Amino acid sequence: MAEKLPLIQRLCIIGVGLIGGSLARALREAGEVGEVIGCGRGEANLQTAVRLGVIDRYHLDPARAVAGADVVVIAVPLGAIEPVLRTIVPHLAATAIITDVGSAKSSVVADVARVYGQIPPNFVPGHPIAGTENSGVEAAFATLFQRRRVILTPLAETAAAAHDLIKRMWELTGAEVVDMGVHHHDAVLAATSHLPHLLAYTLVDTLARLDDRAEIFRYAAGGFRDFTRIASSDPTMWRDICVANREQLLEMIALFNADLAQLAEAIRDDDHAAILATFQRAKRARDNLYLE
Amino acid sequence: MAEKLPLIQRLCIIGVGLIGGSLARALREAGEVGEVIGCGRGEANLQTAVRLGVIDRYHLDPARAVAGADVVVIAVPLGAIEPVLRTIVPHLAATAIITDVGSAKSSVVADVARVYGQIPPNFVPGHPIAGTENSGVEAAFATLFQRRRVILTPLAETAAAAHDLIKRMWELTGAEVVDMGVHHHDAVLAATSHLPHLLAYTLVDTLARLDDRAEIFRYAAGGFRDFTRIASSDPTMWRDICVANREQLLEMIALFNADLAQLAEAIRDDDHAAILATFQRAKRARDNLYLE
Repeated sequence: MAEKLPLIQRLCIIGVGLIGGSLARALREAGEVGEVIGCGRGEANLQTAVRLGVIDRYHLDPARAVAGADVVVIAVPLGAIEPVLRTIVPHLAATAIITDVGSAKSSVVADVARVYGQIPPNFVPGHPIAGTENSGVEAAFATLFQRRRVILTPLAETAAAAHDLIKRMWELTGAEVVDMGVHHHDAVLAATSHLPHLLAYTLVDTLARLDDRAEIFRYAAGGFRDFTRIASSDPTMWRDICVANREQLLEMIALFNADLAQLAEAIRDDDHAAILATFQRAKRARDNLYLE
Repeated sequence: MAEKLPLIQRLCIIGVGLIGGSLARALREAGEVGEVIGCGRGEANLQTAVRLGVIDRYHLDPARAVAGADVVVIAVPLGAIEPVLRTIVPHLAATAIITDVGSAKSSVVADVARVYGQIPPNFVPGHPIAGTENSGVEAAFATLFQRRRVILTPLAETAAAAHDLIKRMWELTGAEVVDMGVHHHDAVLAATSHLPHLLAYTLVDTLARLDDRAEIFRYAAGGFRDFTRIASSDPTMWRDICVANREQLLEMIALFNADLAQLAEAIRDDDHAAILATFQRAKRARDNLYLE
Protein backbone atom coordinates (compact mmCIF):
# COMPACT_ATOMS: atom_id res chain seq x y z
CA MET A 1 0.00 0.00 0.00
CA ALA A 2 1.36 3.40 -0.96
CA GLU A 3 2.28 5.81 1.85
CA LYS A 4 -0.23 8.62 2.21
CA LEU A 5 1.22 11.83 0.78
CA PRO A 6 1.20 14.94 2.95
CA LEU A 7 -1.19 17.76 2.03
CA ILE A 8 1.75 19.98 1.13
CA GLN A 9 4.90 18.54 -0.45
CA ARG A 10 7.05 21.62 -0.28
CA LEU A 11 5.97 24.55 1.89
CA CYS A 12 7.75 27.88 1.63
CA ILE A 13 7.37 30.25 4.60
CA ILE A 14 8.49 33.78 3.88
CA GLY A 15 8.95 35.41 7.30
CA VAL A 16 9.69 32.69 9.84
CA GLY A 17 8.39 34.46 12.95
CA LEU A 18 5.71 33.69 15.51
CA ILE A 19 2.96 33.03 12.95
CA GLY A 20 4.99 31.50 10.12
CA GLY A 21 7.00 29.38 12.54
CA SER A 22 3.94 28.17 14.44
CA LEU A 23 2.22 27.21 11.18
CA ALA A 24 5.26 25.18 10.09
CA ARG A 25 5.43 23.48 13.48
CA ALA A 26 1.70 22.64 13.46
CA LEU A 27 1.81 21.16 9.93
CA ARG A 28 4.89 19.13 10.79
CA GLU A 29 3.20 17.74 13.90
CA ALA A 30 0.19 16.86 11.77
CA GLY A 31 2.53 15.07 9.36
CA GLU A 32 1.02 17.02 6.50
CA VAL A 33 4.08 18.72 5.10
CA GLY A 34 7.01 17.20 3.21
CA GLU A 35 9.66 19.86 3.29
CA VAL A 36 9.65 23.36 4.77
CA ILE A 37 11.77 26.08 3.14
CA GLY A 38 12.26 29.24 5.16
CA CYS A 39 12.99 32.70 3.85
CA GLY A 40 13.65 35.99 5.58
CA ARG A 41 16.01 38.90 5.92
CA GLY A 42 17.66 37.84 9.18
CA GLU A 43 19.98 34.89 8.64
CA ALA A 44 20.48 34.34 12.39
CA ASN A 45 16.72 33.87 12.82
CA LEU A 46 16.64 31.38 9.92
CA GLN A 47 19.56 29.46 11.41
CA THR A 48 17.67 29.31 14.69
CA ALA A 49 14.61 28.08 12.79
CA VAL A 50 16.66 25.24 11.28
CA ARG A 51 18.21 24.41 14.66
CA LEU A 52 14.75 24.32 16.27
CA GLY A 53 13.49 22.04 13.49
CA VAL A 54 10.87 24.56 12.36
CA ILE A 55 12.26 24.62 8.79
CA ASP A 56 14.47 22.20 6.87
CA ARG A 57 16.55 24.79 5.04
CA TYR A 58 16.41 28.41 3.97
CA HIS A 59 17.22 30.94 1.32
CA LEU A 60 17.72 34.65 1.92
CA ASP A 61 16.45 35.35 -1.59
CA PRO A 62 12.67 34.87 -1.88
CA ALA A 63 13.01 34.12 -5.62
CA ARG A 64 15.07 31.03 -4.80
CA ALA A 65 13.06 30.08 -1.72
CA VAL A 66 9.79 29.64 -3.64
CA ALA A 67 11.29 27.38 -6.31
CA GLY A 68 9.23 24.20 -6.55
CA ALA A 69 7.00 25.06 -3.60
CA ASP A 70 3.37 23.99 -3.89
CA VAL A 71 2.30 26.38 -1.12
CA VAL A 72 3.88 29.73 -0.29
CA VAL A 73 2.88 31.49 2.95
CA ILE A 74 3.84 35.15 3.12
CA ALA A 75 4.13 35.92 6.83
CA VAL A 76 5.93 39.25 6.76
CA PRO A 77 4.66 42.63 8.05
CA LEU A 78 2.03 44.13 5.73
CA GLY A 79 4.42 46.76 4.37
CA ALA A 80 6.76 44.05 3.04
CA ILE A 81 4.12 42.04 1.18
CA GLU A 82 4.22 43.97 -2.09
CA PRO A 83 8.04 43.86 -2.52
CA VAL A 84 8.03 40.16 -1.62
CA LEU A 85 5.33 39.48 -4.20
CA ARG A 86 7.23 41.41 -6.89
CA THR A 87 10.28 39.27 -6.22
CA ILE A 88 8.60 35.88 -6.12
CA VAL A 89 5.88 36.02 -8.77
CA PRO A 90 8.19 35.37 -11.74
CA HIS A 91 9.66 32.34 -9.93
CA LEU A 92 6.54 30.60 -8.67
CA ALA A 93 5.64 27.14 -9.92
CA ALA A 94 2.59 27.27 -12.22
CA THR A 95 0.52 25.30 -9.70
CA ALA A 96 1.76 27.12 -6.58
CA ILE A 97 -0.87 28.44 -4.20
CA ILE A 98 -0.04 31.62 -2.32
CA THR A 99 -1.53 32.93 0.91
CA ASP A 100 -0.65 35.55 3.50
CA VAL A 101 -1.36 36.13 7.19
CA GLY A 102 -1.74 39.92 7.23
CA SER A 103 -4.02 41.59 9.79
CA ALA A 104 -5.59 43.85 7.15
CA LYS A 105 -6.86 42.46 3.87
CA SER A 106 -7.82 45.38 1.59
CA SER A 107 -4.22 46.51 1.36
CA VAL A 108 -3.01 42.98 0.59
CA VAL A 109 -5.59 42.57 -2.16
CA ALA A 110 -4.49 45.93 -3.59
CA ASP A 111 -0.84 44.82 -3.44
CA VAL A 112 -1.69 41.58 -5.24
CA ALA A 113 -3.67 43.41 -7.93
CA ARG A 114 -0.82 45.86 -8.48
CA VAL A 115 1.84 43.16 -8.77
CA TYR A 116 -0.18 40.74 -10.95
CA GLY A 117 -2.08 43.42 -12.88
CA GLN A 118 -5.23 41.48 -11.89
CA ILE A 119 -6.50 39.23 -9.10
CA PRO A 120 -4.86 35.82 -9.70
CA PRO A 121 -6.82 32.61 -9.02
CA ASN A 122 -4.09 31.09 -6.85
CA PHE A 123 -3.82 33.79 -4.16
CA VAL A 124 -5.97 33.26 -1.05
CA PRO A 125 -5.84 36.19 1.40
CA GLY A 126 -5.86 34.92 4.98
CA HIS A 127 -5.61 36.07 8.57
CA PRO A 128 -5.17 33.80 11.59
CA ILE A 129 -6.66 35.53 14.65
CA ALA A 130 -3.93 34.35 16.95
CA GLY A 131 -0.72 35.62 18.39
CA THR A 132 1.06 36.52 21.56
CA GLU A 133 2.98 39.66 22.46
CA ASN A 134 6.19 37.78 21.61
CA SER A 135 7.84 37.79 18.19
CA GLY A 136 10.36 35.65 16.35
CA VAL A 137 10.69 31.96 15.62
CA GLU A 138 11.71 31.19 19.20
CA ALA A 139 8.22 32.23 20.29
CA ALA A 140 6.56 29.85 17.78
CA PHE A 141 4.66 26.79 19.00
CA ALA A 142 2.57 24.16 17.26
CA THR A 143 -0.66 24.74 19.21
CA LEU A 144 -0.88 28.50 18.66
CA PHE A 145 -3.86 28.15 16.30
CA GLN A 146 -5.83 25.51 18.18
CA ARG A 147 -9.41 26.62 18.74
CA ARG A 148 -8.57 30.02 17.22
CA ARG A 149 -10.25 31.43 14.14
CA VAL A 150 -8.59 31.89 10.78
CA ILE A 151 -10.39 34.28 8.45
CA LEU A 152 -10.00 33.80 4.71
CA THR A 153 -11.20 36.52 2.34
CA PRO A 154 -11.31 34.78 -1.06
CA LEU A 155 -12.31 36.92 -4.02
CA ALA A 156 -14.58 36.22 -7.00
CA GLU A 157 -11.44 35.37 -8.98
CA THR A 158 -10.04 32.93 -6.41
CA ALA A 159 -9.98 29.30 -7.57
CA ALA A 160 -12.04 26.94 -5.43
CA ALA A 161 -9.17 24.45 -5.29
CA ALA A 162 -6.77 27.08 -3.95
CA HIS A 163 -9.32 28.21 -1.37
CA ASP A 164 -9.95 24.60 -0.30
CA LEU A 165 -6.28 23.81 0.12
CA ILE A 166 -5.57 26.84 2.31
CA LYS A 167 -8.71 26.08 4.32
CA ARG A 168 -7.54 22.48 4.87
CA MET A 169 -4.04 23.70 5.75
CA TRP A 170 -5.37 25.88 8.56
CA GLU A 171 -7.83 23.26 9.77
CA LEU A 172 -4.88 20.91 10.23
CA THR A 173 -3.49 23.38 12.80
CA GLY A 174 -6.64 23.04 14.89
CA ALA A 175 -8.14 26.36 13.79
CA GLU A 176 -11.72 27.07 12.77
CA VAL A 177 -11.68 28.60 9.30
CA VAL A 178 -14.30 31.16 8.30
CA ASP A 179 -14.76 33.18 5.13
CA MET A 180 -15.45 36.89 5.19
CA GLY A 181 -15.55 39.80 2.76
CA VAL A 182 -12.36 41.84 2.52
CA HIS A 183 -13.89 45.12 3.65
CA HIS A 184 -15.92 43.51 6.41
CA HIS A 185 -12.81 41.76 7.75
CA ASP A 186 -10.99 45.06 7.98
CA ALA A 187 -13.90 46.72 9.80
CA VAL A 188 -14.21 43.92 12.35
CA LEU A 189 -10.45 43.83 12.93
CA ALA A 190 -10.17 47.62 13.22
CA ALA A 191 -12.66 47.40 16.09
CA THR A 192 -11.50 44.27 17.88
CA SER A 193 -7.77 44.33 17.38
CA HIS A 194 -6.31 47.42 15.75
CA LEU A 195 -8.01 50.03 17.94
CA PRO A 196 -7.28 48.15 21.20
CA HIS A 197 -3.61 47.83 20.27
CA LEU A 198 -3.46 51.52 19.45
CA LEU A 199 -5.02 52.44 22.79
CA ALA A 200 -2.64 50.18 24.67
CA TYR A 201 0.39 51.60 22.89
CA THR A 202 -0.82 55.15 23.49
CA LEU A 203 -1.56 54.54 27.16
CA VAL A 204 1.86 53.05 27.83
CA ASP A 205 3.52 55.85 25.89
CA THR A 206 1.53 58.50 27.78
CA LEU A 207 2.46 57.03 31.16
CA ALA A 208 6.08 56.39 30.18
CA ARG A 209 6.57 60.10 29.57
CA LEU A 210 5.25 61.21 32.97
CA ASP A 211 7.83 62.45 35.48
CA ASP A 212 7.08 59.71 37.98
CA ARG A 213 7.04 56.97 35.34
CA ALA A 214 9.27 54.59 37.30
CA GLU A 215 6.91 54.70 40.26
CA ILE A 216 3.87 54.50 38.01
CA PHE A 217 5.05 51.32 36.38
CA ARG A 218 5.96 49.93 39.81
CA TYR A 219 2.41 50.41 41.09
CA ALA A 220 0.75 49.03 38.01
CA ALA A 221 -2.22 47.01 39.20
CA GLY A 222 -3.94 44.04 37.63
CA GLY A 223 -5.95 46.05 35.13
CA PHE A 224 -2.99 47.91 33.76
CA ARG A 225 -0.95 44.73 33.48
CA ASP A 226 -3.54 43.13 31.19
CA PHE A 227 -3.90 46.34 29.32
CA THR A 228 -0.25 46.89 28.57
CA ARG A 229 0.88 43.38 27.72
CA ILE A 230 -0.18 43.96 24.13
CA ALA A 231 1.92 47.15 23.98
CA SER A 232 4.87 44.79 23.89
CA SER A 233 3.91 43.58 20.40
CA ASP A 234 6.14 44.15 17.38
CA PRO A 235 6.17 47.90 16.52
CA THR A 236 6.93 47.44 12.81
CA MET A 237 4.08 45.00 12.35
CA TRP A 238 1.68 47.40 14.03
CA ARG A 239 2.98 50.42 12.17
CA ASP A 240 2.20 48.55 8.96
CA ILE A 241 -1.27 47.59 10.19
CA CYS A 242 -2.08 51.24 10.96
CA VAL A 243 -0.91 52.26 7.50
CA ALA A 244 -2.74 49.40 5.77
CA ASN A 245 -6.07 49.81 7.55
CA ARG A 246 -5.93 53.57 7.90
CA GLU A 247 -9.46 54.56 6.93
CA GLN A 248 -11.28 52.02 9.06
CA LEU A 249 -8.93 52.61 11.97
CA LEU A 250 -9.37 56.39 11.86
CA GLU A 251 -13.11 55.86 11.82
CA MET A 252 -12.91 53.67 14.93
CA ILE A 253 -10.61 56.16 16.68
CA ALA A 254 -13.16 58.90 15.98
CA LEU A 255 -15.99 56.82 17.47
CA PHE A 256 -13.92 55.97 20.53
CA ASN A 257 -12.82 59.59 20.95
CA ALA A 258 -16.39 60.85 20.89
CA ASP A 259 -17.37 58.32 23.55
CA LEU A 260 -14.37 59.12 25.74
CA ALA A 261 -15.07 62.85 25.41
CA GLN A 262 -18.66 62.25 26.47
CA LEU A 263 -17.54 60.27 29.51
CA ALA A 264 -14.98 62.96 30.44
CA GLU A 265 -17.77 65.52 30.14
CA ALA A 266 -19.94 63.48 32.49
CA ILE A 267 -17.07 63.27 35.00
CA ARG A 268 -16.46 67.02 34.70
CA ASP A 269 -20.17 67.72 35.23
CA ASP A 270 -20.37 65.31 38.17
CA ASP A 271 -23.13 63.52 36.25
CA HIS A 272 -23.19 60.34 38.33
CA ALA A 273 -26.04 58.78 36.37
CA ALA A 274 -24.31 59.17 33.01
CA ILE A 275 -21.03 57.72 34.31
CA LEU A 276 -22.81 54.75 35.88
CA ALA A 277 -24.90 54.15 32.74
CA THR A 278 -21.74 53.91 30.60
CA PHE A 279 -20.06 51.45 32.93
CA GLN A 280 -23.19 49.34 33.30
CA ARG A 281 -23.70 49.22 29.53
CA ALA A 282 -20.09 48.11 29.04
CA LYS A 283 -20.22 45.50 31.78
CA ARG A 284 -23.49 44.10 30.43
CA ALA A 285 -22.09 43.94 26.90
CA ARG A 286 -18.87 42.35 28.05
CA ASP A 287 -20.57 39.80 30.31
CA ASN A 288 -23.36 38.92 27.86
CA LEU A 289 -21.93 39.19 24.38
CA TYR A 290 -18.42 38.14 25.04
CA LEU A 291 -18.14 34.50 25.94
CA GLU A 292 -14.68 33.37 26.93
CA MET B 1 1.56 29.51 79.35
CA ALA B 2 -1.11 31.95 78.17
CA GLU B 3 -2.41 31.54 74.63
CA LYS B 4 -1.09 34.20 72.26
CA LEU B 5 -3.82 36.73 71.57
CA PRO B 6 -4.66 37.54 67.95
CA LEU B 7 -3.68 40.95 66.59
CA ILE B 8 -7.34 41.90 66.32
CA GLN B 9 -9.89 40.70 68.86
CA ARG B 10 -13.01 41.89 67.12
CA LEU B 11 -12.83 42.96 63.50
CA CYS B 12 -15.77 44.73 61.87
CA ILE B 13 -15.89 44.66 58.07
CA ILE B 14 -18.37 47.10 56.58
CA GLY B 15 -18.91 45.95 53.01
CA VAL B 16 -18.21 42.21 52.82
CA GLY B 17 -17.24 41.98 49.15
CA LEU B 18 -14.13 40.88 47.28
CA ILE B 19 -11.73 43.08 49.29
CA GLY B 20 -13.41 43.00 52.71
CA GLY B 21 -14.11 39.29 52.43
CA SER B 22 -10.57 38.44 51.29
CA LEU B 23 -9.09 40.47 54.16
CA ALA B 24 -11.26 38.60 56.67
CA ARG B 25 -10.28 35.26 55.13
CA ALA B 26 -6.56 36.11 55.16
CA LEU B 27 -6.60 37.25 58.81
CA ARG B 28 -8.52 34.15 59.84
CA GLU B 29 -6.01 31.92 58.06
CA ALA B 30 -3.21 33.78 59.83
CA GLY B 31 -5.00 33.12 63.13
CA GLU B 32 -4.80 36.82 63.89
CA VAL B 33 -8.43 37.71 64.35
CA GLY B 34 -10.78 36.72 67.17
CA GLU B 35 -14.20 37.48 65.83
CA VAL B 36 -15.33 38.98 62.52
CA ILE B 37 -18.52 41.04 62.38
CA GLY B 38 -19.89 41.76 58.94
CA CYS B 39 -22.06 44.66 57.91
CA GLY B 40 -23.67 45.60 54.62
CA ARG B 41 -26.88 46.47 52.88
CA GLY B 42 -27.54 43.12 51.27
CA GLU B 43 -28.63 40.54 53.83
CA ALA B 44 -28.34 37.66 51.33
CA ASN B 45 -24.65 38.49 50.77
CA LEU B 46 -24.04 38.62 54.54
CA GLN B 47 -25.78 35.27 54.99
CA THR B 48 -23.53 33.85 52.28
CA ALA B 49 -20.52 35.34 54.09
CA VAL B 50 -21.54 33.55 57.30
CA ARG B 51 -22.15 30.30 55.43
CA LEU B 52 -18.72 30.54 53.77
CA GLY B 53 -17.09 31.18 57.15
CA VAL B 54 -15.84 34.62 56.09
CA ILE B 55 -17.62 36.36 58.99
CA ASP B 56 -18.99 35.04 62.30
CA ARG B 57 -22.13 37.15 62.39
CA TYR B 58 -23.53 40.34 60.96
CA HIS B 59 -25.63 43.42 61.53
CA LEU B 60 -27.40 45.38 58.85
CA ASP B 61 -27.01 48.53 60.96
CA PRO B 62 -23.41 49.81 60.95
CA ALA B 63 -23.97 51.49 64.34
CA ARG B 64 -24.56 48.09 65.91
CA ALA B 65 -21.92 46.29 63.84
CA VAL B 66 -19.03 48.41 65.14
CA ALA B 67 -19.93 47.95 68.83
CA GLY B 68 -16.86 46.70 70.69
CA ALA B 69 -14.73 46.33 67.55
CA ASP B 70 -11.05 47.16 67.96
CA VAL B 71 -10.59 47.49 64.17
CA VAL B 72 -13.21 48.67 61.68
CA VAL B 73 -12.50 48.25 57.95
CA ILE B 74 -14.74 50.29 55.69
CA ALA B 75 -14.77 48.41 52.38
CA VAL B 76 -17.70 50.05 50.61
CA PRO B 77 -17.63 52.04 47.34
CA LEU B 78 -16.14 55.50 47.84
CA GLY B 79 -19.51 57.24 47.59
CA ALA B 80 -20.81 55.32 50.61
CA ILE B 81 -17.90 56.10 52.95
CA GLU B 82 -19.18 59.43 54.29
CA PRO B 83 -22.69 58.16 55.21
CA VAL B 84 -21.16 55.05 56.81
CA LEU B 85 -18.78 57.23 58.86
CA ARG B 86 -21.64 59.49 60.01
CA THR B 87 -23.52 56.45 61.24
CA ILE B 88 -20.68 54.68 63.03
CA VAL B 89 -18.61 57.47 64.62
CA PRO B 90 -20.92 57.99 67.63
CA HIS B 91 -20.86 54.23 68.31
CA LEU B 92 -17.15 53.43 67.99
CA ALA B 93 -15.17 52.18 70.97
CA ALA B 94 -12.77 54.87 72.24
CA THR B 95 -9.78 52.74 71.23
CA ALA B 96 -11.16 51.59 67.87
CA ILE B 97 -8.92 52.01 64.83
CA ILE B 98 -10.61 52.71 61.53
CA THR B 99 -9.31 52.18 58.02
CA ASP B 100 -10.74 52.04 54.52
CA VAL B 101 -9.78 50.43 51.21
CA GLY B 102 -10.88 53.14 48.78
CA SER B 103 -9.08 53.56 45.45
CA ALA B 104 -8.87 57.35 45.86
CA LYS B 105 -7.64 58.91 49.07
CA SER B 106 -8.20 62.69 48.89
CA SER B 107 -11.94 62.25 48.87
CA VAL B 108 -11.81 59.83 51.81
CA VAL B 109 -9.71 62.25 53.86
CA ALA B 110 -12.18 65.02 53.02
CA ASP B 111 -15.07 62.76 54.09
CA VAL B 112 -13.32 61.98 57.37
CA ALA B 113 -12.58 65.66 58.04
CA ARG B 114 -16.20 66.60 57.36
CA VAL B 115 -17.63 63.90 59.62
CA TYR B 116 -15.18 64.37 62.52
CA GLY B 117 -14.74 68.14 62.10
CA GLN B 118 -10.99 67.38 62.09
CA ILE B 119 -8.57 64.57 61.16
CA PRO B 120 -8.87 62.00 63.96
CA PRO B 121 -5.74 60.15 65.17
CA ASN B 122 -7.35 56.70 64.79
CA PHE B 123 -8.26 56.78 61.09
CA VAL B 124 -5.65 55.31 58.71
CA PRO B 125 -6.53 55.76 55.02
CA GLY B 126 -5.54 52.66 53.04
CA HIS B 127 -5.67 51.12 49.58
CA PRO B 128 -4.80 47.54 48.72
CA ILE B 129 -3.64 47.41 45.08
CA ALA B 130 -5.37 44.13 44.42
CA GLY B 131 -8.58 42.89 42.95
CA THR B 132 -10.11 40.85 40.21
CA GLU B 133 -12.92 41.70 37.85
CA ASN B 134 -15.27 39.72 40.10
CA SER B 135 -17.24 41.23 42.95
CA GLY B 136 -18.99 39.96 46.07
CA VAL B 137 -18.03 37.74 48.97
CA GLU B 138 -18.16 34.61 46.81
CA ALA B 139 -15.19 35.97 44.85
CA ALA B 140 -13.14 36.53 48.03
CA PHE B 141 -10.06 34.39 48.72
CA ALA B 142 -7.37 34.47 51.40
CA THR B 143 -4.38 34.89 49.08
CA LEU B 144 -5.69 37.91 47.14
CA PHE B 145 -3.16 40.26 48.76
CA GLN B 146 -0.10 38.03 48.67
CA ARG B 147 2.84 39.82 47.04
CA ARG B 148 0.55 42.76 46.24
CA ARG B 149 1.11 46.27 47.52
CA VAL B 150 -1.06 48.04 50.06
CA ILE B 151 -0.65 51.81 50.12
CA LEU B 152 -1.36 53.66 53.37
CA THR B 153 -1.64 57.44 53.34
CA PRO B 154 -1.34 58.40 57.02
CA LEU B 155 -1.67 62.10 57.85
CA ALA B 156 0.26 64.30 60.27
CA GLU B 157 -2.57 63.77 62.77
CA THR B 158 -2.55 59.96 62.48
CA ALA B 159 -1.41 58.16 65.63
CA ALA B 160 1.69 56.01 65.16
CA ALA B 161 0.03 53.11 67.02
CA ALA B 162 -2.97 53.18 64.66
CA HIS B 163 -0.71 53.33 61.61
CA ASP B 164 1.39 50.44 62.94
CA LEU B 165 -1.59 48.23 63.64
CA ILE B 166 -3.10 48.67 60.15
CA LYS B 167 0.34 48.11 58.64
CA ARG B 168 0.73 44.85 60.59
CA MET B 169 -2.81 43.80 59.65
CA TRP B 170 -2.02 44.06 55.93
CA GLU B 171 1.39 42.46 56.28
CA LEU B 172 -0.34 39.43 57.78
CA THR B 173 -2.19 38.99 54.48
CA GLY B 174 1.13 38.68 52.64
CA ALA B 175 1.08 42.21 51.24
CA GLU B 176 3.92 44.70 51.09
CA VAL B 177 2.81 47.88 52.82
CA VAL B 178 4.10 51.26 51.62
CA ASP B 179 3.31 54.79 52.76
CA MET B 180 2.51 57.56 50.32
CA GLY B 181 1.16 61.09 50.37
CA VAL B 182 -2.57 61.42 49.73
CA HIS B 183 -2.25 63.55 46.61
CA HIS B 184 0.60 61.49 45.20
CA HIS B 185 -1.37 58.29 45.69
CA ASP B 186 -4.26 59.73 43.73
CA ALA B 187 -1.98 60.84 40.87
CA VAL B 188 -0.28 57.45 40.59
CA LEU B 189 -3.60 55.60 40.72
CA ALA B 190 -5.25 57.91 38.19
CA ALA B 191 -2.50 56.93 35.76
CA THR B 192 -2.11 53.23 36.49
CA SER B 193 -5.62 52.17 37.35
CA HIS B 194 -8.36 54.74 36.91
CA LEU B 195 -7.49 55.82 33.37
CA PRO B 196 -6.97 52.22 32.10
CA HIS B 197 -10.33 51.19 33.53
CA LEU B 198 -12.00 54.17 31.91
CA LEU B 199 -10.45 53.33 28.54
CA ALA B 200 -11.51 49.70 28.82
CA TYR B 201 -15.07 50.62 29.74
CA THR B 202 -15.22 53.15 26.91
CA LEU B 203 -13.81 50.73 24.34
CA VAL B 204 -16.27 47.99 25.24
CA ASP B 205 -19.12 50.49 25.22
CA THR B 206 -18.05 51.89 21.84
CA LEU B 207 -17.86 48.43 20.28
CA ALA B 208 -21.06 47.23 21.93
CA ARG B 209 -23.00 49.96 20.17
CA LEU B 210 -21.76 49.11 16.67
CA ASP B 211 -24.21 47.44 14.32
CA ASP B 212 -22.16 44.28 14.00
CA ARG B 213 -21.42 44.04 17.73
CA ALA B 214 -22.31 40.36 17.99
CA GLU B 215 -19.77 39.51 15.32
CA ILE B 216 -17.23 41.92 16.76
CA PHE B 217 -17.33 40.29 20.16
CA ARG B 218 -17.16 36.88 18.50
CA TYR B 219 -13.92 37.76 16.72
CA ALA B 220 -12.29 39.35 19.72
CA ALA B 221 -8.64 38.36 19.65
CA GLY B 222 -6.15 37.96 22.45
CA GLY B 223 -5.43 41.63 22.86
CA PHE B 224 -9.05 42.63 23.16
CA ARG B 225 -9.74 39.84 25.62
CA ASP B 226 -7.09 41.15 28.03
CA PHE B 227 -8.25 44.66 27.43
CA THR B 228 -11.91 44.11 28.17
CA ARG B 229 -11.70 41.80 31.16
CA ILE B 230 -11.44 44.83 33.41
CA ALA B 231 -14.59 46.31 31.86
CA SER B 232 -16.41 43.63 33.80
CA SER B 233 -15.57 45.33 37.12
CA ASP B 234 -18.24 46.74 39.42
CA PRO B 235 -19.82 49.82 37.75
CA THR B 236 -20.86 51.52 41.02
CA MET B 237 -17.40 51.23 42.48
CA TRP B 238 -15.87 52.74 39.35
CA ARG B 239 -18.49 55.48 39.10
CA ASP B 240 -17.51 56.47 42.65
CA ILE B 241 -13.79 56.38 41.80
CA CYS B 242 -14.35 58.72 38.83
CA VAL B 243 -16.29 61.12 41.03
CA ALA B 244 -13.77 60.92 43.89
CA ASN B 245 -10.63 61.37 41.79
CA ARG B 246 -12.16 63.69 39.21
CA GLU B 247 -9.44 66.31 38.84
CA GLN B 248 -6.51 63.94 38.52
CA LEU B 249 -8.47 61.64 36.24
CA LEU B 250 -9.52 64.48 33.93
CA GLU B 251 -5.90 65.56 33.75
CA MET B 252 -4.82 62.06 32.73
CA ILE B 253 -7.62 61.80 30.16
CA ALA B 254 -6.45 65.08 28.65
CA LEU B 255 -2.86 63.82 28.39
CA PHE B 256 -3.99 60.56 26.85
CA ASN B 257 -6.31 62.34 24.44
CA ALA B 258 -3.55 64.61 23.21
CA ASP B 259 -1.30 61.60 22.58
CA LEU B 260 -4.05 59.65 20.81
CA ALA B 261 -4.87 62.69 18.65
CA GLN B 262 -1.21 62.98 17.71
CA LEU B 263 -1.06 59.31 16.74
CA ALA B 264 -4.29 59.60 14.73
CA GLU B 265 -2.76 62.61 12.97
CA ALA B 266 0.34 60.57 12.12
CA ILE B 267 -1.85 57.79 10.72
CA ARG B 268 -3.90 60.31 8.71
CA ASP B 269 -0.70 61.87 7.34
CA ASP B 270 0.82 58.46 6.54
CA ASP B 271 3.75 59.49 8.74
CA HIS B 272 5.32 56.04 9.10
CA ALA B 273 8.25 57.28 11.17
CA ALA B 274 6.04 58.97 13.77
CA ILE B 275 3.79 55.90 14.13
CA LEU B 276 6.75 53.58 14.51
CA ALA B 277 8.46 55.91 17.01
CA THR B 278 5.37 55.87 19.25
CA PHE B 279 5.09 52.09 19.22
CA GLN B 280 8.81 51.62 19.80
CA ARG B 281 8.80 54.06 22.71
CA ALA B 282 5.85 52.23 24.27
CA LYS B 283 7.35 48.79 23.76
CA ARG B 284 10.67 49.90 25.21
CA ALA B 285 8.97 51.45 28.23
CA ARG B 286 6.81 48.43 28.77
CA ASP B 287 9.64 45.92 28.38
CA ASN B 288 12.18 47.91 30.43
CA LEU B 289 10.28 49.70 33.14
CA TYR B 290 7.58 47.23 33.78
CA LEU B 291 8.85 44.08 35.40
CA GLU B 292 6.24 41.40 35.87
